[in-house]
Formats: sequence, C-alpha cells, structure tokens
Amino acid sequence: MNKPKAAITAIGGHVPDFRLTNKVLETMIDTTDEWITTRTGIKERRILKGEGQGLSVMIMAALDNMREKTGKRLDDVDAVIVSTVTPDMPVATTSAYIINKIGAKSAFGFDLQAACSGFLYGLATGATYIESGRFKKVLVIGGDKMSSIIDYTDRTTCVIFGDGCGAVLLEPSEEGHGVHDFILRSDGIGRPHLNIKAGGSMYPPTEQTVANREHFVYQEGQAVFKFAVTNMAEVAAEIMERNQLNADNVNWLVPHQANKRIIDATAKKMGVDDNKVMLNIQRYGNTTNGTLPLCLWDYESQLKKGDTLIFAAFGGGFTWGSLYLTWAYDPK
Amino acid sequence: MNKPKAAITAIGGHVPDFRLTNKVLETMIDTTDEWITTRTGIKERRILKGEGQGLSVMIMAALDNMREKTGKRLDDVDAVIVSTVTPDMPVATTSAYIINKIGAKSAFGFDLQAACSGFLYGLATGATYIESGRFKKVLVIGGDKMSSIIDYTDRTTCVIFGDGCGAVLLEPSEEGHGVHDFILRSDGIGRPHLNIKAGGSMYPPTEQTVANREHFVYQEGQAVFKFAVTNMAEVAAEIMERNQLNADNVNWLVPHQANKRIIDATAKKMGVDDNKVMLNIQRYGNTTNGTLPLCLWDYESQLKKGDTLIFAAFGGGFTWGSLYLTWAYDPK
Repeated sequence: MNKPKAAITAIGGHVPDFRLTNKVLETMIDTTDEWITTRTGIKERRILKGEGQGLSVMIMAALDNMREKTGKRLDDVDAVIVSTVTPDMPVATTSAYIINKIGAKSAFGFDLQAACSGFLYGLATGATYIESGRFKKVLVIGGDKMSSIIDYTDRTTCVIFGDGCGAVLLEPSEEGHGVHDFILRSDGIGRPHLNIKAGGSMYPPTEQTVANREHFVYQEGQAVFKFAVTNMAEVAAEIMERNQLNADNVNWLVPHQANKRIIDATAKKMGVDDNKVMLNIQRYGNTTNGTLPLCLWDYESQLKKGDTLIFAAFGGGFTWGSLYLTWAYDPK
Repeated sequence: MNKPKAAITAIGGHVPDFRLTNKVLETMIDTTDEWITTRTGIKERRILKGEGQGLSVMIMAALDNMREKTGKRLDDVDAVIVSTVTPDMPVATTSAYIINKIGAKSAFGFDLQAACSGFLYGLATGATYIESGRFKKVLVIGGDKMSSIIDYTDRTTCVIFGDGCGAVLLEPSEEGHGVHDFILRSDGIGRPHLNIKAGGSMYPPTEQTVANREHFVYQEGQAVFKFAVTNMAEVAAEIMERNQLNADNVNWLVPHQANKRIIDATAKKMGVDDNKVMLNIQRYGNTTNGTLPLCLWDYESQLKKGDTLIFAAFGGGFTWGSLYLTWAYDPK
C-alpha cells in the first residue's frame, strides 16, 4: 500500500493595509532607505493597526480569501496548525479560536512555535497527518503580527520585520502530487543570538522587564546571518541531492524571506536562476511564519501542476529545514 | 504493509523539591486545607524556585532520569516535541535548547501549545511521526512551570496549579504495541473562560498589563468544570466504543489531573473502577502539560506489557481528547 501524498489544494493570504515604508522609518530612527535596501532588500512592510487586534484577525482574512477563491468549505477540516510566535494570547490557543470561527466541529488544533521555520515544520507535520490516513483535510497556517514584539527604537530589527499571514489546505492527492520529502533541524546554539528574553518561564513579565524592553525581539544580525547562509543553503542542497533533483528540474525555490542576501546565497548554492526564486521581501519584509505561504499566495498564478518546489527556511532557535513537493493544480 | 505502531519505550520525570502545602496556602490567602481537599483533591504542589530558572531545568532533570533508568541514549533522537504553556522564552524554542543539551545533532523540534491537552496532542503527533516511517525515535515532553503564570493572590487558581515535567520516548514496536487510536478536539468557545489575556499579539506586555495582573492565568472555574466533565468523559467513552473496549479490558485510565471530581466523573462514565485510575493530583496539583507523563512516571512499576491504557485530557482553549495505547514493556 502506498501512502497518500499530502497535496496543497488551496491557498489564502492576507497582509494589513498600512504600509510602513523605508522613507517613514528614516523619520523614526537613524537609517536610510538606501542602507535598508542594500542590506536587506526590503522597501516596505505592512503593519496591523488597532487596539486589541491580534494574529487571528489576519488569519480569518486569509481564510476568507481562501474560501472566496476556491469555494472550498473549511467547516469539515480535521486539524488546524497555527505556526506563529505571536498567538493572540499565551494561553487559549489561536488555533482553537480559529476552529470555532470556521465552525469545524470535529477539528483539533495547536499553536506551533519554531520561530521563522514554524510554517515549514507545520507543513511537514500536516503532511504527515495526511500520509497517516487518519486525516483528510488539514489547514496549515503561518503568520505573525511581528509589530507586537518589535522595538521601533531598535534599528537592527524594526527595519526587517512586518505583519502578514498565509494558509494552505492539505488534502490527499489522487495523482501522487504533494509533499515528497523534508529535512528539519533545530539547535539551541542559536538561543543567545536571536530571542525574546522575557515573557517565558525564565523571566516572567514584570514592570522591570517591560522597562528594560526585554519583551522585544533581540537579534545579533551578523551571527544569525552566518548561520542562516550556511545552514539554509546546505539543507536545500541536501534535499535536492537525496531526491536526485538538479537546478534544471527544480521549478521554484520558496525561501524564507529574512534577507535578500541569504536568499541569493541559497539559490546560488542550489544553482537555481533568479527567475525561479519566489521573492516578496521587498513588499512585506520578514513576516516570520508568514513568509512561505505568502510567497505561494503571490506566485500561485504562475504555478502549474507537476511543478517541483523546494522550500527552505532558517530562523530563531536556531531552527531550519527544507521540503520538496510537487504542485497539484494548474492556475484557474 | 502494516504501519509500525509507536510504542512508549522509556519514561522520565521530575518535580521540584519545594512543596507548597495547603497549610502554607492557608497563611497566604483566604482558604482552608479542608476546602481545597474537598473541592480539588490537592494536598500540596511543587514549585521551582530560583531566579531565571525556566521549564528547561525540569526537562533536563526528567531526561537525566530517563537516561539513568533505562540506559537509553538520546543523542540519536529524530524529533523533540515540547508541549508547554510556559516555554523558557517566547522566541528561541525550548525544544531547540533541549536538542542542543542532549546533543541530538540530526533532530528537529518545536514547542506545542494546546494548554492542558498539549501532552496528549504531542503524543498523538509523535506517534504519527513514527507511524509515517520517517522517524525512529521521538521524544515527547510535557511540562510546565505554572508558578511563572499564577497569581498567588488569586485563590481560585493558585491552589490548583503546580510545577512538574515528564517525558516519554516513542519508538516503533516490533510486537504491535503502542498508540492505536486517538480522538482530539478543540473549540475556541472556551477562550473567555480560561486564558492569559496579555502577553500575546492582542495585548503585548506593557507596564499597565503588568499592573493589571493580566499576565496570569484567568479561570472561571464553574464554566470550565462543566465543559471538562462532559467533554473528557464523552471522548473517553467514544474511543472505548469505537475500539470495542469495555471497562473489563481497560487496565488503566490516565486522566489529566485538573480536579479529582472531573477524574471521578470520567472514570464513572467509562465504568472503570477507582483502582484502575492513575492519580497524583494530591501530590502535584495540576501541572498542565506535566500531568499525563508524570502519571506514567509514578505508575510505571505497575504497568505490564500488553496493558490497555486510555488517556483523557481537557484544557484551556478549549482543547480535549482521548488516546488508546497498549503498553510495550514489563517492569524492570
């Protein structure tokens, strides 16, 4: 008996309306449009405004987008994985809230934390659920309201991150398309270089941790950059090699959008031309768990049935990985 | 081809030394030992003391315990799932940190959030990984440092929760023992009744949220109790029915330890005698993600190969579920 493949059968996405441009950042901190563009490739990022507006606002917009485009119902999904570092609340999962909102009476879900690799981990886990035969419809959502954990006086981080969310629906493929292989890795060697110090069980919130600005993302850009370039490129090359893929039969690289230079280095290591590399960092910045599904959302109209896609991600923790799938449908 | 079953092949556990007894709570808040005992079944709970001591301190102690007891190596595990609501930090996963500490060079891991059902969700997910054939050794860890999110002036919650952690190792079974079936559910209808309001993307930490004590667990005990009694009992009965199990051929109920009265109601609905119900709430309170693996840890010496175990859990979100497995080894 062959295991069913888990195919992506629908995509939805959402980015908030408000655009925070490099020009505006020039008025807020000591930086320039030219410096940001050269170092990161980012021109603007989106910000979710409004008191009490959490990640779930963007998730529901992305799922509405998915339903409108495809006519798919979501009230019969079996599982909902929400990959995020910015759930609505620390307790009472965002996934349970979404399950209630879409009316999926028989579903379960959890919030998955693996920093910028979270969506890739969720996609691999959702695919394994489908392959097991236990489940027929799994929603994998990746998104973050990074503006809720970014210090807009810290010029090393506030130019990089933005808000956004995407979602994919996984279903068994009758034609053998879907997720074929993945390699995932984690190593806590990265903890000192990229973290949020306070707000967990080591340093619970106090007036002092708030005053010390310890609830914001701390990142040592150079250290993270070095690990990211090496590991993201290596794992992408490894998954190609063990699946007998080469640059000619890879149609698309879907890379985490942390930094244009890391993306370029990964594509170079894989031997993949620039025109096969999905890119939206210039418009959204690094949306953390949102980058990969938002890439699919932006490029969906160019994807054809049978296309070979290689996903690659790297993030805090450190966490990283690569995933190989073939696309299951032609553009509408 | 039959899928391999995922069997629990090792257990480790840890609770901190410091005991917070009902007698001491009587001196801190307006309560009595008699009231707490009658309503919850709890006599004392453990607390992890010390500045900067996070969940990972207890996890490493539990894994040391596992290695010492079994001689199993952990540096070759493929995946580490840390089910918790109290990770060390909000970004930089506790799972990546643990992977580094145990030297598991080829592993990946993520932190899983599903409140009190988190360990059950992690166990089901880890089992699915093993069943997929992709992975041979998966660590599923459940633990919480609840004292980091409990308001010790709130007598409705501080008498209930405690700190603790357990871990199980999953490996393919050659004898067909292991996880046979599970039913998991989530419904955001529970969000208003049990949550931590601030610290997520809806209400990021501010001096005001700290002053308002909004980083602590808020629970409407009566509402949660009603949902828990109904749903935990129903899902346990459902998994027995669909696997043709009855009270006679169930050897053990492994229930989430939130409240002795919820446990009793679940056992009654299943028709299972008290002497088949694992119980440690009197000594540890509700350790959230720690309750189920700590039950296994406490009762390990009484478990025999082939024993039928039914797990049942209910928690914030709401999230709930049940899992049926057969035990894979005899006591040493």
